[in-house]
Amino acid sequence: MTDIVIAGIGQTEVGEHWDIGLRELAFSAIQAAVKDSGGLRPQALFAGNMLAPNLSNQAHLGVLLADYAGLTGVEAVTVEAAGASGGAALRQGYLAVASGMVDVALVIGVEKFTDKIGSDVEEALATASDSDFEAVQGMTVTAQAALLMKRYMYEYQVPVDGFAGFALTAHANGATNKYAMYRKAIKAETYARAEMVSDPLNMFDIAPNADGAAAVILTRRDLLPRDFAHPLVKISGSASAADTLALHDRRDVLYFEAAQFSAGKAIKQAGITLDQINFFEYHDAFSIYAALQLESVGFAIRGQGWKLASDGSIGLKGRIPSATFGGLKARGFPGGATGLYQAVEAAAQLRGQAEANQVAGAKYGLIQSLGGPASTAISHILQCLD
Amino acid sequence: MTDIVIAGIGQTEVGEHWDIGLRELAFSAIQAAVKDSGGLRPQALFAGNMLAPNLSNQAHLGVLLADYAGLTGVEAVTVEAAGASGGAALRQGYLAVASGMVDVALVIGVEKFTDKIGSDVEEALATASDSDFEAVQGMTVTAQAALLMKRYMYEYQVPVDGFAGFALTAHANGATNKYAMYRKAIKAETYARAEMVSDPLNMFDIAPNADGAAAVILTRRDLLPRDFAHPLVKISGSASAADTLALHDRRDVLYFEAAQFSAGKAIKQAGITLDQINFFEYHDAFSIYAALQLESVGFAIRGQGWKLASDGSIGLKGRIPSATFGGLKARGFPGGATGLYQAVEAAAQLRGQAEANQVAGAKYGLIQSLGGPASTAISHILQCLD
Repeated sequence: MTDIVIAGIGQTEVGEHWDIGLRELAFSAIQAAVKDSGGLRPQALFAGNMLAPNLSNQAHLGVLLADYAGLTGVEAVTVEAAGASGGAALRQGYLAVASGMVDVALVIGVEKFTDKIGSDVEEALATASDSDFEAVQGMTVTAQAALLMKRYMYEYQVPVDGFAGFALTAHANGATNKYAMYRKAIKAETYARAEMVSDPLNMFDIAPNADGAAAVILTRRDLLPRDFAHPLVKISGSASAADTLALHDRRDVLYFEAAQFSAGKAIKQAGITLDQINFFEYHDAFSIYAALQLESVGFAIRGQGWKLASDGSIGLKGRIPSATFGGLKARGFPGGATGLYQAVEAAAQLRGQAEANQVAGAKYGLIQSLGGPASTAISHILQCLD
Repeated sequence: MTDIVIAGIGQTEVGEHWDIGLRELAFSAIQAAVKDSGGLRPQALFAGNMLAPNLSNQAHLGVLLADYAGLTGVEAVTVEAAGASGGAALRQGYLAVASGMVDVALVIGVEKFTDKIGSDVEEALATASDSDFEAVQGMTVTAQAALLMKRYMYEYQVPVDGFAGFALTAHANGATNKYAMYRKAIKAETYARAEMVSDPLNMFDIAPNADGAAAVILTRRDLLPRDFAHPLVKISGSASAADTLALHDRRDVLYFEAAQFSAGKAIKQAGITLDQINFFEYHDAFSIYAALQLESVGFAIRGQGWKLASDGSIGLKGRIPSATFGGLKARGFPGGATGLYQAVEAAAQLRGQAEANQVAGAKYGLIQSLGGPASTAISHILQCLD
């Protein structure tokens, strides 16, 4: 099979976009991605979004975005897998191009938390969990992460500031990302002083809900000229896996099986080994997720993931740089757009365009998008072709 | 490329399933489809659903259904395109198998209108239209169809009972479909006496919202034994197209461009001509949609689609049998499951298992799933292989 590449990337600043709606927000990322691709015309649009039906009373989003972008006639669909909706849309776009039936696919992730004409945000986010057995009992996604973190701290005897390094690293990297919501490094004292949200999760263990849109243009390598305007990024591995939806149905809550399984499949497809991966964009909606992803994927042994945040391992010059543009914590968490932000950021790394955030010599990046506590885990290996 | 076939089909009775939830409803269709396929094990699950986030406070449905069906580890995603969600899920499943990355895909459509722990049904359905410019003005999907029908009647001078034949045909066919919501033929007087809902739409111009689930198992022909237990149905054409989301943005509201475009592509891919199609499963959420689909696809010239309902053309022995198991009107309209009901019913026709509803000698069937007034139109040509 011919290589499937990311030929264009685009993103909007992550933040609170009170003045514009879903369509305008998405369009600005779409426009940037199409321009970056040298004006490729998509035949299909895959929209990753989680909350528009609830927060904005808007389903049928794929068509709305295609319509507003002047792409009527294309095929357009919304792909949803909770927080992993962006990764899921990327996967569907990839499969569409791999099928040979679509030459150019536009994958767009968009989320607007500031639209609240529909339901409440915490209630909307809780639709990611098991409505009948979790949400209906009053379990929010945040409360669930707190339980997970508490169990982890108990099992592995982790001190209260054991997770600080995740926020410190994220904010250090976000400081030089012009698209990030928070562009300010923080100190250990800031983490230590932070307000408790759901014990033991404090404010800095939780990624901020935010508005944002990010897009990529996928196509086959053989459809592009040899002297393309910028380095091309190949999708060399793509896989998605589901675990139980409810956390209480897991045989082992402290191991993200779907994260392990989908990363393993993507790595195998790429024909590489774990130690060839130069950076990892994890889904740090909560710091405990980041720790568990590092362990489940295999960058740390069980119970030791949190240490990678403190010993410099996940820094830009560390063993496995993570959240290189600030991650969900500092770049911000625009729900179903998150997986596309990961793809755009990884592509920038692999193109050598990450400027102050550059991971030197990056050739392979792993991005992993989660829905809930890895009820869905979608992994892609991106590779620099030039 | 090797043939992609429907190896298994399953469906539940359409109706009001107050006693069970989304997962149980879906599981009964999944179980039937897996059994019908001789026990094939899916690697991927594509869930077509529109309203669960709003009516049942449940997103992340793909994982919920995979989990409940004992399929953890597979990839699972929800695909949404309003009323065309089922067709969209079928399209994604088809692309996944065509890509060569998935050998066996389970495509399940499920909808529960009787779950109303979230928003109101009419409000939820209105999320299919343009929230900012249509729904927010109080325009329901039903009111929009009424405007469309009124314009059609005015332009083409159609009498008030001009649409009766759609309901009469649907109910005649539904009478012998054991999965149908309404299994009773109706008379012309019943239509004439029916209560007005939104002038000129009466009760019998509108398909009933209902609960239901339908599933198919897709795989490659070459992965199955030569002597498979039942005739195989090939997907010989698959296409999806988007129009403007809002009706008021169309240059011509009385022509479903996306219906024409996607059907044309699917027919071309199948390598057949329109007159080789033996039956048509249209998306008669409203009788006016059926009339416009018949015209847009090319079975009738413009302004004449409604006549096919009166002159016997769409009957089981007519020129282009339609709604052969009762269509949305009599079988019922289970939202995002509808496109899968169409696939299951078309497969039954092509396998020669339609019993009293059989279209004699059916070799090719066209199924077309709509989101809104063909804002999305997804077309598949199914073909009997044996």
